[in-house]
This record gives sequence, structure tokens and C-alpha cells, in this order.
Amino acid sequence: MTPSEFASIDEAVRKAVASQGFMQLVGAKIDTLAPGKAVMSLERRAEVLQQHGFFHGGAVAFLVDNATTIAAGTTVDRHTHTCLTAEYKLNFVAPGKGERLVCEATVLKSGRRLAVVEAKVYSHEGDKATLTAVALATIAVIERQAVA
Amino acid sequence: MTPSEFASIDEAVRKAVASQGFMQLVGAKIDTLAPGKAVMSLERRAEVLQQHGFFHGGAVAFLVDNATTIAAGTTVDRHTHTCLTAEYKLNFVAPGKGERLVCEATVLKSGRRLAVVEAKVYSHEGDKATLTAVALATIAVIERQAVA
Amino acid sequence: MTPSEFASIDEAVRKAVASQGFMQLVGAKIDTLAPGKAVMSLERRAEVLQQHGFFHGGAVAFLVDNATTIAAGTTVDRHTHTCLTAEYKLNFVAPGKGERLVCEATVLKSGRRLAVVEAKVYSHEGDKATLTAVALATIAVIERQAVA
Amino acid sequence: MTPSEFASIDEAVRKAVASQGFMQLVGAKIDTLAPGKAVMSLERRAEVLQQHGFFHGGAVAFLVDNATTIAAGTTVDRHTHTCLTAEYKLNFVAPGKGERLVCEATVLKSGRRLAVVEAKVYSHEGDKATLTAVALATIAVIERQAVA
Repeated sequence: MTPSEFASIDEAVRKAVASQGFMQLVGAKIDTLAPGKAVMSLERRAEVLQQHGFFHGGAVAFLVDNATTIAAGTTVDRHTHTCLTAEYKLNFVAPGKGERLVCEATVLKSGRRLAVVEAKVYSHEGDKATLTAVALATIAVIERQAVA
Repeated sequence: MTPSEFASIDEAVRKAVASQGFMQLVGAKIDTLAPGKAVMSLERRAEVLQQHGFFHGGAVAFLVDNATTIAAGTTVDRHTHTCLTAEYKLNFVAPGKGERLVCEATVLKSGRRLAVVEAKVYSHEGDKATLTAVALATIAVIERQAVA
Repeated sequence: MTPSEFASIDEAVRKAVASQGFMQLVGAKIDTLAPGKAVMSLERRAEVLQQHGFFHGGAVAFLVDNATTIAAGTTVDRHTHTCLTAEYKLNFVAPGKGERLVCEATVLKSGRRLAVVEAKVYSHEGDKATLTAVALATIAVIERQAVA
Repeated sequence: MTPSEFASIDEAVRKAVASQGFMQLVGAKIDTLAPGKAVMSLERRAEVLQQHGFFHGGAVAFLVDNATTIAAGTTVDRHTHTCLTAEYKLNFVAPGKGERLVCEATVLKSGRRLAVVEAKVYSHEGDKATLTAVALATIAVIERQAVA
């Protein structure tokens, strides 16, 4: 993929995500997009926490849901194919206590029909990043005429 | 468990969930609580959808995350124990096109350390309910002094 | 599907499974096949146990792996399509102490590209069946020319 | 942990695994044990394959099941605690075509009650290793008196 080809993918992904009402509600943002990679982050505010003051598991899941699908989306030709989340599994390994959640999604395998993507979510506090959650996702790669 | 014992669990669970900022932001509500059971729902509005007008996968995951933990919470003595989501796996089986998402979580096994809970999420449109997602969760049951 | 159409699926599935070296090594058998359903069982013997005398988790996983794929296989036209396990998640809820493991796999959704299948594994001891494991699987449905 | 402390863990783990009937039946072996790490392998032979001549998914799952639990076992005091597989999720990313399967399990988080372990399974053919499966497991860490 040439840089200018990726630039068009980058633009299309950001536009699709920006048009999600839930993305706007939660207030997450895309930090990095690269072929096979997506990094998203979410700043601490009361609206994304649970009752003990940690990031809500549902907010963690939202980041995983979006970042894994977006990462898979960077590996397909968006004129002919689109990506849909088939499933994921999410382990919580430590409470999200920090100022910012950062979800790093990496494509492990990009097949013609399915992509497998792993995600690690870190809680950032100053210079320190603590692993908060880890996930494994299966993304369906679908021909555009098939969904039309 | 007597009805009055369950009434105190019911009250404690609803109070804990009501104090979650993310619950308020997403706007879900608890429809039913019973021993080993929790039903939560979310009405369609633009803020919980993705770019094609379906309920966002992250909103589905939020319902699963909360409903499975709450269902496990109905099976433990809340004076001595609390529940934390250890992990879940979530399959999307059809797009959430309806007017309301309903997540039904049922405890399959309530152990001393772990509970296993399944969840089914339906998209309701008029009288019709379509299975949208199915999940399997592991909830850690923790002694209160252990987390203090 | 007519009974005679299903009879040809039944025969093809049993033949494919019988030709698996691992199926013969483990010694499991197919109890029931029906549209969207497969039941497999495994009798207790020392070779399928772990160090405490319970059925080995790997033997449970083997039943889940095979039964979920077989159940999905009953829902597709085997002349044109084949089924491959994409992924599964397996929760162990009680040790397999009984004389026989029985794995019941049920298709929840049979799509054009993916099937979602749940499985419950019971440990049988005399008349009593105890839930031992529960699983959720994603099976890829693939056109035969695509794999040729 | 001193090398001599780990030597006693290494010995105890190998002894427990060697006494599993299913381990002997499948014919896998432990290649490496280190704190938070376990590597197991399985050589190709007809008895561990499926009908197309690839390693059977159940054989892959067996390696994941054992290697993740063993890896968690290297991080606990075996005089006071033992490890039980709570659940895992396993994605198949490529057929196991090679001469040998190698499963590398790495502890991501070792908590007081739960350990989270990831596993990658490679198919080796000569000098080449191909990622075949990836898994994420939750292992329960249990006090020995609690299971007695």
C-alpha cells in the first residue's frame, strides 16, 4: 500500500467513525491509524466511570469494539469491502484508575473473509501505563455488494 | 432467599448502578431483577447508534457488561461479597435495527469464587424480538474485606 | 429440508468425522444429528482424564470443537459449502466427575458467512447430569470452490 | 524467585502433567518452563489430525488448555495454591499444516485469585513457523485447603 492509498483509507475510516452517535456521546478519539493498527483513547470524566470511580467496563468494551474493527478496516480495500464485528472476548486485568484509557488494536491475521485482531487497553496516569484489559476479536470482511 | 432478603439486594443493586456515570450517560434502565436474573433495556436514540443507524456494538457490550455483573450480584450476600467482571465474550448475530434493545442475563453457575452468566440481547420492533447478540461472562465473587 | 435431504447430510457428516484420526484416538461418538443440532459423547477411561481423575479440559474442548462445527454443518448445503471453526470460548463450570461426557451443540444463528453455535457439556453419572462446561462458537461457512 | 525455588515448581508441574492420561494419549511434551511461561509441542502423526490432514482443532485446544494453566502454575506457591482453568477463547487463524505444533503461553497478569494468560500456537515446517491459533485464558488460583 502506498502512503497516498493509505491516506484515503485513513480519511474514510475517520469519517465513518465520526458519524457514529455513540462515538460522539462517549467522547473517544482516534489517536493513530496505520496499516493493521488503530489506537483510540478516552479521557477520564464522570460520565464514563462506574460507581467506584474507575472507567466503566462498558467504556473499555466500546474502545475495544471500535478499535478492533477500525484496525481491520485499515487492511481492506474500502471501495469493495467493509468490516463488521463478528465477536470479541475481553478480559479485565486491573481497574481503570488513570486519567486516560488508551486502546491499541493490532491485526494478527487479515484473511479474505475474517480478520483476527488483538487489543490491549492501558490506563495512563502521568508517565505510567498499566494494562487494564486485553481482548481478542474476530472481524468479518464483507463484499460491499453483499451488504447493499 | 426470602422475598424481603431479595428486596434488600434489589435495592442495593439499583442504587449501585444508578450511581454509575456511564449508566446515566448511555441511558439504559433495569427492567427486572430476580435471583440469578437481570434484564436491562436501552431505547433507540441517535446517541447510541453507529453510522448505519443500528445500535452501536459498544452499547450492546455495555448492556452485557452491566447485566451479567448485576445478575451475578443477585446471587451473593452483598454485606460480605461483591462482584467484579472478570471477562466476557460477545457474538453479534444480527444488526440492532429495532426501537429497543433488551438484554437478558441468566446465571448458569454461581460458585464461591466465580459465577458464569449467559446473556442474550434482543432487538425489539413492535411485537417482534430478534436475537442480536449472545454473550458468556465470568464474574469474580470477592470478599468485601479483600477489596477494602 | 426433507428427511431424505437430511439423511444425505447426516451420512456425509458422519463419514467426515469418522475419518478424523483424532476422533478415533479420543474415542468420542456422535449420538444425535438433526438440523441445527449435534450431540456427541465420550465415555470415561483413564486416557481422557487429568491428574485428579476428572475428564481433561482438552477432552471437553475436543467435544465442543467437533460438536459445534458439526451442528453448523447440518445447516448448510454440503455440495456447495463447508464449515470451518473460526473460534470458540469455553467456560468450565464444574469438574467432569461422571461416567460419560455429553456435549449438546445448538445453532443459534445460521448466516450466509458465519454460524453462531452454543454448546453445553454435561457430566452424566447414573441418572444425574451436571453442567460441566458451556461454550459459544463462531463457525465460518465457506463456498467449496473457495477452498479448492 | 530463586533458581532453586523455580526448580521445585518445575519438577512439580512436570510431575502433575505427566500423570495426566490425556497428555500421554495425545503425546504432547513440555519444551520450556520459566516463571510466567510455558511452551508445549506436539509432533504430527495421523492420530492428532482431522480429515484434511491438518492438526485437529481439538489437539490445538488441548495444547492451549494445558500450556495456559501450566504457565499460570509457574507463578503461584504450589504448597499453598493450585491452578484451575476457568475459561479460554481460541481463534484459529490458519490450518495446522506443518510437522509440529508449538504452543507458547505467557502470563499477562498474575493476580491473587485469577491469572490471565495469552497463548500463540505456531505450526512449524522446517525453519518456518506460521501462526495457527491465538488464545486468551482465565485461570483460577485456589488455596489448597479450599479444594481439599
